[in-house]
Amino acid sequence: MTELFQEISPADFFYRNRDIAGFTNPSRAIYSTLRELVENSLDSCETYSHLPDIYIRVSQISESEEDPGTYFVRVQDNGCGVPPDMIPPAFGQVLFGSKYKLRQTRGTFGLGGKMAILYGQITTHKPVRIISSTGRGKIHEYELSMDIQHNKPIILKHKKHPNQNKWHGTIIELHTEADYTRAMSKILDYMKQTGIVAPYANLTFVDPKGRLYRSVRATQKMPKPPKETTLHPHGVDVEALKRIIETTTTRTMKDFMKTHFQRVGNTIARRFLDSAGVNHKKNPKRLEPEEIVRLVNAMKTFNDFLAPDASCLSPLGEELLEAGINKEFTPEFVTVHQRRPAAYSGFPFIVEVGIAYGGQIQNTGKTALYRFANKIPLLFDESSDVSWKVVDSLVDWRHYKVPPDAPLAVFVHLCSTKIPYKTVGKEFIADRPDIEREILNAVRETARRLSIFLSKKQHLEREKKRLDVFEEYLPKIASFSAKLAGRKTVPNIKQLLRSVMKYGAEGEREKGN
Amino acid sequence: MTELFQEISPADFFYRNRDIAGFTNPSRAIYSTLRELVENSLDSCETYSHLPDIYIRVSQISESEEDPGTYFVRVQDNGCGVPPDMIPPAFGQVLFGSKYKLRQTRGTFGLGGKMAILYGQITTHKPVRIISSTGRGKIHEYELSMDIQHNKPIILKHKKHPNQNKWHGTIIELHTEADYTRAMSKILDYMKQTGIVAPYANLTFVDPKGRLYRSVRATQKMPKPPKETTLHPHGVDVEALKRIIETTTTRTMKDFMKTHFQRVGNTIARRFLDSAGVNHKKNPKRLEPEEIVRLVNAMKTFNDFLAPDASCLSPLGEELLEAGINKEFTPEFVTVHQRRPAAYSGFPFIVEVGIAYGGQIQNTGKTALYRFANKIPLLFDESSDVSWKVVDSLVDWRHYKVPPDAPLAVFVHLCSTKIPYKTVGKEFIADRPDIEREILNAVRETARRLSIFLSKKQHLEREKKRLDVFEEYLPKIASFSAKLAGRKTVPNIKQLLRSVMKYGAEGEREKGN
Repeated sequence: MTELFQEISPADFFYRNRDIAGFTNPSRAIYSTLRELVENSLDSCETYSHLPDIYIRVSQISESEEDPGTYFVRVQDNGCGVPPDMIPPAFGQVLFGSKYKLRQTRGTFGLGGKMAILYGQITTHKPVRIISSTGRGKIHEYELSMDIQHNKPIILKHKKHPNQNKWHGTIIELHTEADYTRAMSKILDYMKQTGIVAPYANLTFVDPKGRLYRSVRATQKMPKPPKETTLHPHGVDVEALKRIIETTTTRTMKDFMKTHFQRVGNTIARRFLDSAGVNHKKNPKRLEPEEIVRLVNAMKTFNDFLAPDASCLSPLGEELLEAGINKEFTPEFVTVHQRRPAAYSGFPFIVEVGIAYGGQIQNTGKTALYRFANKIPLLFDESSDVSWKVVDSLVDWRHYKVPPDAPLAVFVHLCSTKIPYKTVGKEFIADRPDIEREILNAVRETARRLSIFLSKKQHLEREKKRLDVFEEYLPKIASFSAKLAGRKTVPNIKQLLRSVMKYGAEGEREKGN
Repeated sequence: MTELFQEISPADFFYRNRDIAGFTNPSRAIYSTLRELVENSLDSCETYSHLPDIYIRVSQISESEEDPGTYFVRVQDNGCGVPPDMIPPAFGQVLFGSKYKLRQTRGTFGLGGKMAILYGQITTHKPVRIISSTGRGKIHEYELSMDIQHNKPIILKHKKHPNQNKWHGTIIELHTEADYTRAMSKILDYMKQTGIVAPYANLTFVDPKGRLYRSVRATQKMPKPPKETTLHPHGVDVEALKRIIETTTTRTMKDFMKTHFQRVGNTIARRFLDSAGVNHKKNPKRLEPEEIVRLVNAMKTFNDFLAPDASCLSPLGEELLEAGINKEFTPEFVTVHQRRPAAYSGFPFIVEVGIAYGGQIQNTGKTALYRFANKIPLLFDESSDVSWKVVDSLVDWRHYKVPPDAPLAVFVHLCSTKIPYKTVGKEFIADRPDIEREILNAVRETARRLSIFLSKKQHLEREKKRLDVFEEYLPKIASFSAKLAGRKTVPNIKQLLRSVMKYGAEGEREKGN
C-alpha cells in the first residue's frame, strides 16, 4: 500500500521521454539525428573559424527497401575535434559536454548528438563509431555504447592512427532506425536552409539512393566566432550568485561586481552597491543568505547597469544573410536589416531580417517564413513561433502595398547567448515581449523598403503598358498618315516614342528601335 | 584553443533550462508551482482511493504589495503520504520519485514538484518545509534545501510528531517569487477546470487577498484507481527488452513472453515465437545482441497480439464528466461520449468528449475548448494541441447546424499510460494519428447529438413564435367577434389555442391560461 520510489539517470529520463527532444518516431528521428549532428559539426568548425566542410551520408542497410528500416549515418567535419579522453563521455554520457557556457552556439542543451546515438542504440543495438583528432597528435577511433541506466559510456574499442597531415575534425558513424521516405522533404529543406544561414559552408549530402545534394560555399567570409561571456546582473538568481561567491578570488564586493559581471566598471559598481546598501569593502564570502537574496533583487531592479554586451554574439551580418538568400533564391529584390543589439532578462540578442521578392520564390497562398536561431533553421511548429505571430498577424502587409499573391519570403534570424526555446527539440521560440518587438521593427523596416521597390516596379509596369500602347499604334498612325499624305516614306517614330517616355534610360526599350 | 568539457547534474540541467518545464518568469512560475503541487496531491489521493480534500493558500509576504514579490505557498492534502526516509530525495532530488512506472498518473516526468521547490529556492533562498505521514507511525517534518550542483537534498531540520489520529497526507510550504496579479486569471481557470475533471474532490483556495475559492465535491464516486501495467509488445525497444532480460527469472522464451508482456497467453506466445523463428525453450538470458534486435522488430510488427489492456487506465467516465460540466456551467444541454479503448505505439488510451450548450457558457467568437489529459486541465498553447486541430479545422460545425455564435463548449479528456506531451511543462499534446482519429470520432458523435437537440430547440422556438402570434391575435379576434355578434361573453380561446399546438405537453404554455 505504499508507493515505490526510485532514482533514474538523466540518460534514462531522456530515453523515456525522447519525444520532447524531437525523437518521436522513425521519421522525426532521422531528421533530428541529421540536424543535431550537422549542427554540432558547424559549431565545432565555427568556434575556431575553420571554414566548414561537412559531409553527410545516409544509406539503407536493411534488406527490404521498406520504411521504417535500418540505416547507416555518417557525418564528417573539419572542426576542432574532441580531445581523446573526452570522446567517450562527450558521445556516451548525457549532460556532459562543451555547451554549458554563456556563449552563442547552435546547441544549447548539450543533448542532441547523444540523443541521436541513444536512439540508434535502442533501435539497432549497434555501437557508435567516433573518429576524431584535434590536429595535435594522433587520430583516435572509438567504438562506444551507452549504459543508459547508469548514464555511462562503455568503450568497446579504442584505436590510434598516425596523423601526419595534422587532420582535425570528427567523424560519427551510427546505425539507426529511420523512415527516410517520410522525412526526406524536411531533410532537404533543412539542408537548403542551412545553406542560406551558413553561406560560407560546404555541405555535401548523399542520400540513400546515392543522389548527391551540394550546398557550395558562396563566400569565404565567416562571421567572427562567438565569445564566452560573464553574466549580466539582470540575469542573476540566488543559485548563480551563490556559485560565483563559492569560487571567487575577489576580496571586496566592488572587485566582485567588476570581475564577475558584464560591463560593470568602477563607477557603476560603486553606484550600485550604494543603492543596494552594501559596503564596497565587504568580503563576498561573508554575505549572509538574506543579504544574497537582497543583492539579487537589487541587481534585477537597478536600472543604471549598461545594456548586456552583444560583442560576444556572432550574428550573420547583412552581407552574409543577403548572400545566403541570393544563393538559394536569386530573387528579383532582396533587402536585409540587422537591428541593434537588445536584451531580455539580462541576455543580449540581435535580430536580423531579410525580405526577398520574386526569383525562385513561389507564392503558395501564405507568406513564406524562414526562421533561424543561432544559425540553425527551425522547421517545425511554425505557428507557435514568435516570428509567425509577427509576420502573420502583427504586420499589416496591405499597409506596405504588398498584394496577397506576392512571391514573398521573410527571413528572421535571432541570435543570443540564450534562445528562449520552448522545447528541448528546438522547434520554436517563445514570444518574449522584447524579442517580439525587435522582430516586428525589423520586419517593418524591410517591408518599407520592399514597398518602395514594389511601387517603383508598379510605376515601371504602368509605364511599360503605356509605351506598349504607343508602340503598337504609333507605327500604324504613321503609316496611315503617310498614305493619306501620299508620301512614300513613313516618318521615323523613334523620336516621338522617346518624347513620351517618363523614365529616361530605364524606360528605354530594345524593341522597336 | 581546445573546448572545455564539463558534466552537469540533472538538477543543474533543469535549473538552467527551467523554461522548458514551465518556469519561465514569476507569473508562469506561480501558476506552474500551484498546478504541479495540486496535481501531486490529487495523484496521491487517487492512487489509494481517498476522496481528495486539498487546501491551497498563497500569501504575499514582501513588504510592498508590488508584483513580482515574495509569496508563501502552502498546499495540504489527505493523500497516501510519503514514507519518512523517502521525503528528502522525493522533494530534494531531481529524477527521483514514484512516477517512473507504466501507470496513468497526472505527473509523468516526476519533475514538477521539484521544479516548484527549486524555483522557490533560487528566487528566495529559503528552505522548503514538508510535513507528511502515511498514517502508520509518526508525522515527520523536514526542512530541506537542494544542492543543485550535485542534485542532492540537504536536510536542515527533521522533527517527529505523534500521530494519534492516524492522519495521512502531505503538507508542503515554500517561499517563492511570483507575479500573482498577472497569473491570477489562469490560476482561477485552473482551479475551476480541475473542479470539472475531478468533481469528487474538495478544493479550497485562499488567495493573497484572503478571498476564498471553493470547488465543492459534487459526487462521492471516484473512478477506480489506475493500475500499474506491463509493457505491450508493440511498445518495446532494444533497451527495454535488455532491461527485462537482465532481471527476469523466467527460463524459457515462452514464459518470458507470458510473464513480462501485456495480454500474452500460451497461444499467442507460441504463435508469436514461431513466426519470429525463436525456440520456445530458449533461455532469454542467452539471446545474442542480433537476436534481441530481431525479436524487437518482430514484436513491433506481429499483428496478432491483443490490443493493449485499457483496464489499467482510470478514465473519468461519462457520468462523472457530465457531473463536472453541470457543476461548473449548469448548461441547457450536455452530452458526454466515451470512446472504446484504443492504442498508439503499444500504449492504451481512452478519449472522453463532452459538449455543452447554453447555461453559463458564453460565446466569445470561437468555440470554447477545455482540454484535459489524465485528469489535468491544459491551459497553455491551445493552438498547438491536437484537440484544437480537431475542433477548429477537422470538424465542420455547419454540418451539425451549429451556428457560429452558439454558446458552445467542447471538453476533451485523454487518458493514457503515456500522454504524448510535447513539452516538459505539459502544455499540449502532439497529433499522433491514432489519438487524433479517436478525438475526431468522439467530437463527431457528441456533435450529432447536439445537432438533434438544436433542431428540436429550433422547432420549439418556431412553434413558440407561431403560438405567440395566435395568443396575441386570437383574444382580439374573439372579443371583436363577440362585439360584432352582440354577445356579452367572449368565447374561451384556450381550446382553440390547444388545437393549433404541434407538440402536446412540451408546447403547453403557462402564460395566457
